[in-house]
Amino acid sequence: MLKIVLLGGGNVAQHLLEVFSKTPTTTVVQCYNRNLSTIENFQKHTEITNNLEQLKPADVYIIAIKDDAIADFSRSLPLTNKLVVHTSGNVPMLTLADKNRRGVFYPLQSFSKEKEVNFSKIPICIEAENEADLKTLQTLAEAISQHVYTITSEQRKTLHVGAVFVNNFVNQLYQIGSEICEENKIPFEILQPLISETSEKIKTLTPLEAQTGPAKREDTATINSHLKLLKNEDFKDIYKLITKVIIKTHGREKL
Amino acid sequence: MLKIVLLGGGNVAQHLLEVFSKTPTTTVVQCYNRNLSTIENFQKHTEITNNLEQLKPADVYIIAIKDDAIADFSRSLPLTNKLVVHTSGNVPMLTLADKNRRGVFYPLQSFSKEKEVNFSKIPICIEAENEADLKTLQTLAEAISQHVYTITSEQRKTLHVGAVFVNNFVNQLYQIGSEICEENKIPFEILQPLISETSEKIKTLTPLEAQTGPAKREDTATINSHLKLLKNEDFKDIYKLITKVIIKTHGREKL
Repeated sequence: MLKIVLLGGGNVAQHLLEVFSKTPTTTVVQCYNRNLSTIENFQKHTEITNNLEQLKPADVYIIAIKDDAIADFSRSLPLTNKLVVHTSGNVPMLTLADKNRRGVFYPLQSFSKEKEVNFSKIPICIEAENEADLKTLQTLAEAISQHVYTITSEQRKTLHVGAVFVNNFVNQLYQIGSEICEENKIPFEILQPLISETSEKIKTLTPLEAQTGPAKREDTATINSHLKLLKNEDFKDIYKLITKVIIKTHGREKL
Repeated sequence: MLKIVLLGGGNVAQHLLEVFSKTPTTTVVQCYNRNLSTIENFQKHTEITNNLEQLKPADVYIIAIKDDAIADFSRSLPLTNKLVVHTSGNVPMLTLADKNRRGVFYPLQSFSKEKEVNFSKIPICIEAENEADLKTLQTLAEAISQHVYTITSEQRKTLHVGAVFVNNFVNQLYQIGSEICEENKIPFEILQPLISETSEKIKTLTPLEAQTGPAKREDTATINSHLKLLKNEDFKDIYKLITKVIIKTHGREKL
């Protein structure tokens, strides 16, 4: 049984608490947060504390707090030679204080409080300073997910950038689609099947193969008629820029 | 039984032929294409011809050819007072020659030859000059799809712009994600669950509610570290522009 102490009270901490609590081979022995009231509802799964001096013994200490607070917080821990990991996509492992054995446990998913997640499908990217700790993190990750990857801090950082493109930026394009519909009294749900199909397609085709549309065809007449229709200057700029990049990408392919 | 003549030999014509052929209440009596060899394999479902003078009688003539060829082609048809529709998202109904009764039958999906489509989930947007023809198109659309919408040419055009954002542009962001992964020897499949989750999420949340990430949080440190990491100038430009628009969108929300 792997014993875990969770440090943090946000979305990631909450979702990790839930999944580790229901997994037979893992147990969350304690959760720490500076502000106890934030994690009051964690008590149904584990002990809570706001006193670092009272941290319990555990196999892994998981820091799930804001990126820019990780360094200072890890220094403030009254622990030495323990396995301490963070859950961030963007923070190097060595940012953690070196009085402990350092590692990373990064679940590559965007967590909303509102939406349940199925951890078994979430890729977990792990990293550790030594083989034994990497093994522990692997056991921990495999207990909750079928997709575990060992990657370096540098790779993780680029992966995080990639995730911003395929998640946050894609979602903003959905937002633009919904604003365009709303302005013209069209129900946004009309676009839903196309959205699903677009993300489904690349399970069997590469995005390069899956591309269609006026930009790929370099269909200037359609492109210009679309630009004329768009009133929002930001939407126009995005339309122009991504169209240019699609034309470049597929022009390059033809060479 | 609704009798259909298909005019065209591309992806849309092929997929329509397949779905109408297997639907009990519709039949494709003929398919025309200028170049017969392109539609040779259509023969297992219907008669083929490359001679407009030999077009058969039908309830609906569906033009499924390139946008910019629709006007001229519709004028060249040796038909009068027939129901003639096109399948384009971007071409006004009145672009069709007025010697026939005009309409639109626009399946809102991106068709690749390589990938089968499930028509029952595809929204079909219809439009016609008179009630009786609209009724015919509705019957035709409902025979293959559960999602039929009557919308105007103007609405259809904006819908098509929306579709470009949520389909072609989203797919280009997937492409960028895959290039970023490839450059750093990370398997693109790591991002697949996040891609699915992102498109799934907006079935229950609005894109505005679903947004997460450094841009929404206005987390300048992460944004700058990402920009530093990106080498491709186009990717940098897209990162900056969409980040700006996300910040604006969610800033506006706070007002």
